[in-house]
Amino acid sequence: MPKPEAARPHPLAGRQPAALRSLFRAGRYTGATTGLAPGRLQCNLVVLPHRAAQAFAAYCAANPAPCPLLYMGAPGDPMLDALGADIDIRTDLPAYLVHRDGNSGPAVPDILDLWRADSVALLLGCSLSFEEALVAAGVRLRHLERGGDIAAFRTSIKTTPAPPFSGPLVVSMRAVAAADAGRAGAITTRFTHAHGAPLHTGDPAALGIADVERPDWGEPPTIQAGEVPMFWACGVTSHLALLNARLPLAITHAPGAMLITDLAADKPPEPISSS
Amino acid sequence: MPKPEAARPHPLAGRQPAALRSLFRAGRYTGATTGLAPGRLQCNLVVLPHRAAQAFAAYCAANPAPCPLLYMGAPGDPMLDALGADIDIRTDLPAYLVHRDGNSGPAVPDILDLWRADSVALLLGCSLSFEEALVAAGVRLRHLERGGDIAAFRTSIKTTPAPPFSGPLVVSMRAVAAADAGRAGAITTRFTHAHGAPLHTGDPAALGIADVERPDWGEPPTIQAGEVPMFWACGVTSHLALLNARLPLAITHAPGAMLITDLAADKPPEPISSS
Repeated sequence: MPKPEAARPHPLAGRQPAALRSLFRAGRYTGATTGLAPGRLQCNLVVLPHRAAQAFAAYCAANPAPCPLLYMGAPGDPMLDALGADIDIRTDLPAYLVHRDGNSGPAVPDILDLWRADSVALLLGCSLSFEEALVAAGVRLRHLERGGDIAAFRTSIKTTPAPPFSGPLVVSMRAVAAADAGRAGAITTRFTHAHGAPLHTGDPAALGIADVERPDWGEPPTIQAGEVPMFWACGVTSHLALLNARLPLAITHAPGAMLITDLAADKPPEPISSS
Repeated sequence: MPKPEAARPHPLAGRQPAALRSLFRAGRYTGATTGLAPGRLQCNLVVLPHRAAQAFAAYCAANPAPCPLLYMGAPGDPMLDALGADIDIRTDLPAYLVHRDGNSGPAVPDILDLWRADSVALLLGCSLSFEEALVAAGVRLRHLERGGDIAAFRTSIKTTPAPPFSGPLVVSMRAVAAADAGRAGAITTRFTHAHGAPLHTGDPAALGIADVERPDWGEPPTIQAGEVPMFWACGVTSHLALLNARLPLAITHAPGAMLITDLAADKPPEPISSS
């Protein structure tokens, strides 16, 4: 069995969330936030006009595992104090994507010129939260050691639609030692704000996945002897639903470039405030 | 393969939630609520003095999958209007159990004489909600067809303690056709208020279960050829933690005799009101 390579420390390792957000705001880092500020809650971002935001919130409520909506800002207010000191959601992520009519443009460092009086920020949980907990409990996650993107698959299962949002359920796959599978499942049940328990373990065909070595997103995984494939609901689900809706304007975080909050990864914010 | 026996209709089938609660209040039915008012949210009940209720709520928050706390009443107020018309939690369940110092007494038809100025009702989600959705989607659940109690197992996994509450994670097991396993997992992800996705599928040993044919609660299950065992977090977890705490007084619903609310099974109440 190949030895895991020691992960190289990130140049921003050890920085606190507020210091990281200042760097991002100043445009001095536009990369991924994976591995930064361990133990802090990171969130996916969607920015929509108020009416579409309400519909998107309904879609999330109907599909809580793939789309765990944690927080919804007030219309027009870019400051998200409930999630951390002085967070300005227009500047404090490393990079953003702007989607027009379902087509995605290149990454941009801020969205100051796109923010409007009816813009609403929606923050969704992500799997970083539970991956840290798994690793802390001694569950080996090889995609983290390897530093690659996790494999994600479109399934044959449809999410519950909430017009104009609909689409397939997307899952991420982690190969886990069979002896660790029960514990990994139990640990992730606590992260209902971050996709929760695995929705399937075992035969990929049960999810309509024809070839587990050919993911729709991320890098081809390897399943070693003594490991079982475990599938969790994946945030790409909400991204697909967003693009499927072909809205005139939608904004998201750039891939991997998430909001780093001041909150603990295992403590989501109080129930959605909002509008 | 034996044919499933057609389930005999329940004598109270077709009654609305308010009508059922009236019967229970009048002491005219003290049995289980399984199968009654399909499509309506049913809840497990725990009644504790205010201080212990706060601690129990913390235990539930730390273990959301086995202990999905849906609602917490105001101290001393037995009326739970948020859950249904005219619900008096002291009388409107078919039967209750009273536990003193961790010892359970016989079932009683009401708790009028035990309700105090600082009594708090806590309502927890249960797996009936998602079982109906599974059956509606064509997933065969043989324990329902057979009419027996579901098999539940003490695992080797500990819940996150919140003193004085602690104990092992208990899981329920359903044998599901391998081809249905992915869909069953995906459907139950939507029921984060009712144990959510399965925490494990496959080898029972991964949960510390030595013999899947000898459950700690319920009837011995059979796993037929072509089926996989699927394990969900189980409400017995909170019951064990409650008894482990050996409080001077705690009240719960009697086994299977739950609160039938006016709410839809797939729509939990608004986030906990309370105290």
